[in-house]
Amino acid sequence: ELLVELIAYFQPKTLSGRQVLITAGPTSEKIDPVRVLTNRSSGKMGYAIAQAAREAGAQVVLVSGPTALATPYGVNRINVESAAQMHAAVMSEARNSDIFIAVAAVADWHVANASDSKLKKKADGHAPELQFSVNPDILADVAGMVSGPFCVGFAAETENLHQNAEAKRQRKGVPMLVGNLAQQAMNADTTELVLFSSQGAQALPVLPKLDAARRLVREIAQQSSTPHQ
Amino acid sequence: ELLVELIAYFQPKTLSGRQVLITAGPTSEKIDPVRVLTNRSSGKMGYAIAQAAREAGAQVVLVSGPTALATPYGVNRINVESAAQMHAAVMSEARNSDIFIAVAAVADWHVANASDSKLKKKADGHAPELQFSVNPDILADVAGMVSGPFCVGFAAETENLHQNAEAKRQRKGVPMLVGNLAQQAMNADTTELVLFSSQGAQALPVLPKLDAARRLVREIAQQSSTPHQ
Repeated sequence: ELLVELIAYFQPKTLSGRQVLITAGPTSEKIDPVRVLTNRSSGKMGYAIAQAAREAGAQVVLVSGPTALATPYGVNRINVESAAQMHAAVMSEARNSDIFIAVAAVADWHVANASDSKLKKKADGHAPELQFSVNPDILADVAGMVSGPFCVGFAAETENLHQNAEAKRQRKGVPMLVGNLAQQAMNADTTELVLFSSQGAQALPVLPKLDAARRLVREIAQQSSTPHQ
Repeated sequence: ELLVELIAYFQPKTLSGRQVLITAGPTSEKIDPVRVLTNRSSGKMGYAIAQAAREAGAQVVLVSGPTALATPYGVNRINVESAAQMHAAVMSEARNSDIFIAVAAVADWHVANASDSKLKKKADGHAPELQFSVNPDILADVAGMVSGPFCVGFAAETENLHQNAEAKRQRKGVPMLVGNLAQQAMNADTTELVLFSSQGAQALPVLPKLDAARRLVREIAQQSSTPHQ
């Protein structure tokens, strides 16, 4: 325990004085007061990155969807539920941030006709008609800001990781995108990350999430200090 | 802490030698490997009832959807995700149970066309077409068993609690149904229960969930020992 704290304390202060904004966890889209549409995301990777960034000397704001995790020491946490709430919180914080790391598994759609009272099962067993509307693209909106923060995206893919992740990096217009295989990483304590940037792909070994987070933070510190086009 | 354990130890052994089966938590219905349809349920009430039943001397099997809660001491826990999995686990355990308490917030529908690979956002922003199929009714199926266990249902309502809960009790054909207001109870540590049986409605005060669970367990012990029609 003491050893763990010593290791944390002696992490290199590569982000000293930088403002880092991170999203983590799933978002939860209301269908009615009891039913929701959400993603399988424990929030562990985003929380590990928040801790690693704080250890590296950054001021960290963590915008978090519903998780059962404790807030890492020294991190400023803002709780949200829906993608719309997460978008609003991020857009308001992004202007004061040097680095934005979008780790949350944001729902792509919300239910346009969500109900304020609990939907009743119909006698004929038919499900209610749900109408979906597309959610705002938080990463693309921050990446599109004039003199906005250095943006890092995440892509959890189930197949063709390299192809899908590099395509996502270029589509979102971000300098760095971190890919992982959803099946391996979800709710696990270890992860195998691949970092995509204009310099190409760099695969990290399978690591505990906090160790992977520290490696990632060091890489972000380095790349964000050199001007990018 | 010691006091808490002493209080637990000295709970009256009203369920000594009885087999109690409990469901708790939400179920999680797969849309694709990362997206799910689920309910807002922390599982706290079901876990509190499992603990209270164990304290009262019962052998407890807890069939639990995904939660972040620790298994209460001495309780046998079976983890499931979907309503279909919960139904299968319950039907296989119910035959050996004296009492069945259905606390889980089971999804009423699952996605019939769930995908094995992650659905891609379409360029036109349209959501994928989801087809819903109705899930099995776990409580009604157990209540319909010949010489099955004494059945207790739960109803989380957002309005007209008395009317909806008593109607649900009769529709499901169960001797006891516990109602609460979803807005108050969800993710909270206290709850305000109303017990519905053939003897009418009995409102409990606002109580911490473990205290409410102990009151409920005593009531179930009493009513399940007198033959019901």
